Amino acid sequence: MSVDSVLARIDSSLPDSLERLKELLRIPSISTDPAYKDACDKAADWLVADLQSMGVTAEKRPTPGHPMVVGHIDGPGPHLLFYGHYDVQPVDPLDLWDNDPFDPQVEDTSKGKILRGRGTADDKGQLMTFVEACRAWIAEHGSLPCKITFFFEGEEESGSPSLVPFLKENAAELKADIALICDTGLFDSRVPAITTMLRGMLQEEITITGPTRDLHSGMYGGAAMNPIRVLNRILAALHDDQGRVTIPDFYDGVPEIPADVLQQWEALGFDHKAFLGDVGLSDLAGEAGRSALEMIWSRPTCEINGIGGGYQGEGFKTVLPSKASAKISFRLVGQQDPHAIRDSFRQMVTDLTPKDCTVAFKGHGASQASVMSIDNPAFEQARVALSAEWPDEAAFIGSGGSIPVAGYFQTLLGTESMLIGFGKDDDQIHSPNEKYDIESFHKGARSWARILDALTRT
Amino acid sequence: MSVDSVLARIDSSLPDSLERLKELLRIPSISTDPAYKDACDKAADWLVADLQSMGVTAEKRPTPGHPMVVGHIDGPGPHLLFYGHYDVQPVDPLDLWDNDPFDPQVEDTSKGKILRGRGTADDKGQLMTFVEACRAWIAEHGSLPCKITFFFEGEEESGSPSLVPFLKENAAELKADIALICDTGLFDSRVPAITTMLRGMLQEEITITGPTRDLHSGMYGGAAMNPIRVLNRILAALHDDQGRVTIPDFYDGVPEIPADVLQQWEALGFDHKAFLGDVGLSDLAGEAGRSALEMIWSRPTCEINGIGGGYQGEGFKTVLPSKASAKISFRLVGQQDPHAIRDSFRQMVTDLTPKDCTVAFKGHGASQASVMSIDNPAFEQARVALSAEWPDEAAFIGSGGSIPVAGYFQTLLGTESMLIGFGKDDDQIHSPNEKYDIESFHKGARSWARILDALTRT
Repeated sequence: MSVDSVLARIDSSLPDSLERLKELLRIPSISTDPAYKDACDKAADWLVADLQSMGVTAEKRPTPGHPMVVGHIDGPGPHLLFYGHYDVQPVDPLDLWDNDPFDPQVEDTSKGKILRGRGTADDKGQLMTFVEACRAWIAEHGSLPCKITFFFEGEEESGSPSLVPFLKENAAELKADIALICDTGLFDSRVPAITTMLRGMLQEEITITGPTRDLHSGMYGGAAMNPIRVLNRILAALHDDQGRVTIPDFYDGVPEIPADVLQQWEALGFDHKAFLGDVGLSDLAGEAGRSALEMIWSRPTCEINGIGGGYQGEGFKTVLPSKASAKISFRLVGQQDPHAIRDSFRQMVTDLTPKDCTVAFKGHGASQASVMSIDNPAFEQARVALSAEWPDEAAFIGSGGSIPVAGYFQTLLGTESMLIGFGKDDDQIHSPNEKYDIESFHKGARSWARILDALTRT
Repeated sequence: MSVDSVLARIDSSLPDSLERLKELLRIPSISTDPAYKDACDKAADWLVADLQSMGVTAEKRPTPGHPMVVGHIDGPGPHLLFYGHYDVQPVDPLDLWDNDPFDPQVEDTSKGKILRGRGTADDKGQLMTFVEACRAWIAEHGSLPCKITFFFEGEEESGSPSLVPFLKENAAELKADIALICDTGLFDSRVPAITTMLRGMLQEEITITGPTRDLHSGMYGGAAMNPIRVLNRILAALHDDQGRVTIPDFYDGVPEIPADVLQQWEALGFDHKAFLGDVGLSDLAGEAGRSALEMIWSRPTCEINGIGGGYQGEGFKTVLPSKASAKISFRLVGQQDPHAIRDSFRQMVTDLTPKDCTVAFKGHGASQASVMSIDNPAFEQARVALSAEWPDEAAFIGSGGSIPVAGYFQTLLGTESMLIGFGKDDDQIHSPNEKYDIESFHKGARSWARILDALTRT
């Protein structure tokens, strides 16, 4: 079975592929917000129908949260497990979007054509690169060169609460020779990448309560404790002047990267001035003495993702509020234990809370970092295939993001994962005006066709 | 003209007075929010019509913001200027109200009957105590014992931007022998009070901008500066460990209260454990070594009234936001200069902002503290009149709140103000479930009748 005719078909059917992707993007499947539960369900239904239209035996599988989509199609070669997620991030602040986030449009830009909308890059557009590669392969050859299991999640953006139980219950069905995960990026627009190091994640929400009700700052100000002031002091204490996180034992299990690996990263010529300059910044904000790639790929972080308390509307209100809260997430590396860090964080916050206030904690996701073993020959086969599609040689890289599913595939299915994706740094995922380059979508599908070919060539 | 028949009429017409007050309370005149501009206008119209129904020559007077209401009625004795405000605070968080804030209801409580709703205590209910006293007086005697000018503002809760120009333009018309301001409280439910010290106010809003757009904390976290972290460090630096404000020169012009005044305050037997206990607190949060009354009446404060940044919705979003902002207000005392403190605050914030971030300032209200001169015999006449109405002797007290109009009357009209009001500490002004005791409303109107009598008796 030749890959050339598949590539040609991917080229000729690009307009149709884009229309299909737009249909999926129009479904506002925001998993973290209960108001969009029906939309998540609808996105799952759309994927089931789309897989079925290609001859895949697919179904929606219920969970206590949003459903999983599982599809199987038989073939002669190895068994591949393909993972993507159909849920998306919230879209606020909505007024910073140039168009409706759920009415995707193709735009011409100075860097080429793009598709703009929530989920274009994270992860519906990426997910569909693989689906479109399979569709073209089946259209050309009547069948696939290997057995493929499609596995699409609907809770990736909300901490994947149903993922581990689902994998445990369905391990025999989902176990494969290798997993392909499409939720990462290119190294840059010329250099494709296989991501082999991913940071873990810990998410915590804290609420400080002072007075039992909002107070008038004239009547009580000066005498009564303000929970925003307490919260500020706690959050300001989480980093020292050198950018290091101060939570006790936070750095336990954080490895120093070997000198030869640091040299390889150095050789990638990453331009941190350009990276930060794209978003209006110029100075590295992390630990003093570390390079940008170290900060992003191999060092843990503590970030405040949201804070709120008191009056935030137009004008002014001299209120002394009852409550103030913050959402804090940690990116973890190496052997850092998210549960130990959660305990240590909560103890530190509790210790910093004056006895007149109370603190309530709400835990969200928690996952360890993961490091892929690239001994499996599939890694080098995929790297060569990617290099054939893109201008420059593909690289093995780290990633600052957290894709816990790779670790779960390892531990619960015994399946190693290859993380290959086509996102770019300026895709604005999780932000207003998210986009995905048409080139990413098009060459992404072509890349998967080449990888399928490479992994199944006898 | 006897006051006894006026008091009897106030008693018998209480049900009608309450219905009138409820009508005014149903108008949602939130001055700080432009969405309620028409409601503010409507409240002014209602007051004009109500004054006219009593024979007062009243009209709505335009300003660049919400209108003023001015009414005159002639009489033989001295000329009194009565001030109240018809605008109210916002009502959020709305879900903490037990009923619709703009559908006022009388409730029976263990402490007696109350009227619940936004503006009941601050300031529509208080304003109407004076109007009802005048109405009853006119109904009994056909005229008032003195000339009265009614002056109602609609921007008190939003920094009074139009007040100073209006007073300057209309000084000749508004100048009186003494001003009566009804926007303060009783000392406690037995002890009425004339407030002779008021704190000033400075309001500032700051917005820190880091990256030009919201970022993904996986892709940028660790390398890019998070504006929430910057904001937290700035706000946490505003107080030291002893509760003192750290802004350079902040305490310039703050007087130490003389020992004999502190002794008078001590003699009032203020129970700070009960005061804080009512709102679920137990410890004084202000400067170490100061009493509660000192903290509230005679010490300046710095309070964060609102903070916001990043994702505050349900669930979690691992965003590294572009902006974070806070609303900060200062209560000022003695000779503290709000403009000098604004400059010093802005300089300190600017100095604490890393060069990769920008800070934008928005100034809201700024007013100096005011201290009344009680040499005018009207103060002692009013004190005796109040003492006749309430269980215990009336007291001259300080207040933690800011009522800049008293200072403006002093400097722009040359008119001294007596601040007399009937609010209680548990009225929850500026908070959900604001209320005003029926006793405050009823005995408030009776108090004004007695004060009118005392000030005009020959």
